[in-house]
Amino acid sequence: GIAPAVHAQAAVRWRLASSFPKSLDTIYGGAEVFAKAVRAMSGGKFEISVHAGGELMPPFGVVDGVQNGSVEMCHTVPYYFYGKNPAFALGSAIPFGLNSRQMNAWMMHGNGRKLMNEFYAKYNMLSFAGGNTGCQMGGWYRKEIKSPADFKGMKMRLGGGLIGDVMTKLGAVPQSIPGGEIYQSLEKGTLDAAEWVGPYDDQKLGFNKVAPFYYYPGWWEGGPEVDFFINQKAFDGLSAENKAIVEAAAAVASSDMLAKYDALNPTALKQLVASKTKVLPFSQAVLDASFKASMEVFAENDAKSPEWKKIYADLRTFQRDQVLWFRFAESAFDSFMSKQKL
Amino acid sequence: GIAPAVHAQAAVRWRLASSFPKSLDTIYGGAEVFAKAVRAMSGGKFEISVHAGGELMPPFGVVDGVQNGSVEMCHTVPYYFYGKNPAFALGSAIPFGLNSRQMNAWMMHGNGRKLMNEFYAKYNMLSFAGGNTGCQMGGWYRKEIKSPADFKGMKMRLGGGLIGDVMTKLGAVPQSIPGGEIYQSLEKGTLDAAEWVGPYDDQKLGFNKVAPFYYYPGWWEGGPEVDFFINQKAFDGLSAENKAIVEAAAAVASSDMLAKYDALNPTALKQLVASKTKVLPFSQAVLDASFKASMEVFAENDAKSPEWKKIYADLRTFQRDQVLWFRFAESAFDSFMSKQKL
Repeated sequence: GIAPAVHAQAAVRWRLASSFPKSLDTIYGGAEVFAKAVRAMSGGKFEISVHAGGELMPPFGVVDGVQNGSVEMCHTVPYYFYGKNPAFALGSAIPFGLNSRQMNAWMMHGNGRKLMNEFYAKYNMLSFAGGNTGCQMGGWYRKEIKSPADFKGMKMRLGGGLIGDVMTKLGAVPQSIPGGEIYQSLEKGTLDAAEWVGPYDDQKLGFNKVAPFYYYPGWWEGGPEVDFFINQKAFDGLSAENKAIVEAAAAVASSDMLAKYDALNPTALKQLVASKTKVLPFSQAVLDASFKASMEVFAENDAKSPEWKKIYADLRTFQRDQVLWFRFAESAFDSFMSKQKL
Repeated sequence: GIAPAVHAQAAVRWRLASSFPKSLDTIYGGAEVFAKAVRAMSGGKFEISVHAGGELMPPFGVVDGVQNGSVEMCHTVPYYFYGKNPAFALGSAIPFGLNSRQMNAWMMHGNGRKLMNEFYAKYNMLSFAGGNTGCQMGGWYRKEIKSPADFKGMKMRLGGGLIGDVMTKLGAVPQSIPGGEIYQSLEKGTLDAAEWVGPYDDQKLGFNKVAPFYYYPGWWEGGPEVDFFINQKAFDGLSAENKAIVEAAAAVASSDMLAKYDALNPTALKQLVASKTKVLPFSQAVLDASFKASMEVFAENDAKSPEWKKIYADLRTFQRDQVLWFRFAESAFDSFMSKQKL
């Protein structure tokens, strides 16, 4: 039988620190979708308060916060923590890595989640997927990028550490600038380019007015996973029911975010094009040079971090098979559809 | 406060009728993943027993079973019920329809789920996504399909009613044959072709030995959604907590199935190729003729079913934007990756 008194007192209250501002409603909103699902499933007996980036701790301080237990969990992009160990990037996105579906496959039915959680254990935490943006756009540029040489000396705002290393190899000068200051820097020309997310998020910041060249694809984020990191001791303290509830709520939030981005991006893209954005593909030469630079950085990481080396090898083996398979049914279908009048 | 005695007695027991045999472990397994998540989240207070196709009722009788309340829910492919009303297909897959990500976007953040549930209400039921296979393969053929004329008179085993109508327009003769008899019929030549799912499921049936030409893409199933249908009265009888648990467990099962197919298909495809399967793309002429035939069938359905007409119009509008958006970042990324040595 169930001991009712224990149950009645068993209200669990957690705090979740997000790395995102509320203005990024799609990605920030993932944590709210998660918390709402937990609340509904537990009948209000498990409450998680969601705190925007900066509210409890700096946006990039959330892993420290989870590690030392000052919050039970956070919602963030693992590659933000590349500086702690390059292996963090593998839990989210590496240049020319997995697309969103392939990432889910590796995480759920390959070795991805297992290997990442072994690594995250060093930080007293475990992970659940907490969203994906789909393949991002390649950023906003004041001038056209016609060849890899155009990256040389280019001051570019970039999100993560790994793409910073690759862009440095290409000759660019990565800049770390808060979201709110990018527009002015592009306008003044103290910044030549900036990458953000995709049409829906980018449109709000109005970059097209000051840097009209909008390139694709965002080859450094083919399917970036956003994560929930949970303090291991806090998770261990949950009942079996609440553990299952957390896991399922993460699945809800994760699939919801990608669907929301996919639903919102097309309209934003059309509006951007209508307001004089020049949407252009990176040239083959630019992609080839970027691929080469990325592989050089990966080799350097192999030498620097045994955790990167082990997990990267597994991801790459899995990716070879995924790319092979996606060449057939999936690509042929999408490619035919892209040419139809619907 | 919580009334503990009520809680202790509040065990809910449901039966789920699957349309699938246990041998299709990936698609049948989706219902087991769902039931397991419900059990874990409810601490065993909500138990759903999963019954393979034929165990409680015929595989295609499951919608009747849910409608009349003889089971609380089922796990099936909506297009199986095309004969009841063509609109069922829109909840799963139509030829040249949405891919799996686009389907999720339409269902979760477009009008998809809302419109489909309005329609399903006529059958006393509501739906949750319960899986996706990703784009399927285009089937096994005893002879090469070089032009649309090769479909003429071809006896082909097909899964659903809508593709049957389209294939009939192309001159083929759709056959309804149980899974277990396909191999022998292909061997004897009483069947010229058969479509099933994709490499992982197909490989088990050994079709490559008797029909070695394996075509792609399965243009009639670009991203077929598998569904949980739930009797409305049974759902209404659940507590708010259990309703939320059912919804989240469906999200778990849904994303798990696609990831599992993606993880398993590549190895199966490689083994099929190694055992003399000839993997070939449908020609442009074949795809063009199939697209034209599909549009004709859709127009006929517009005239036949007001429910089809309303929902199809919404899906198509949504699809136009999706196809536009996927042409940019997503396709460019996948296309570049497909040519790299990894």
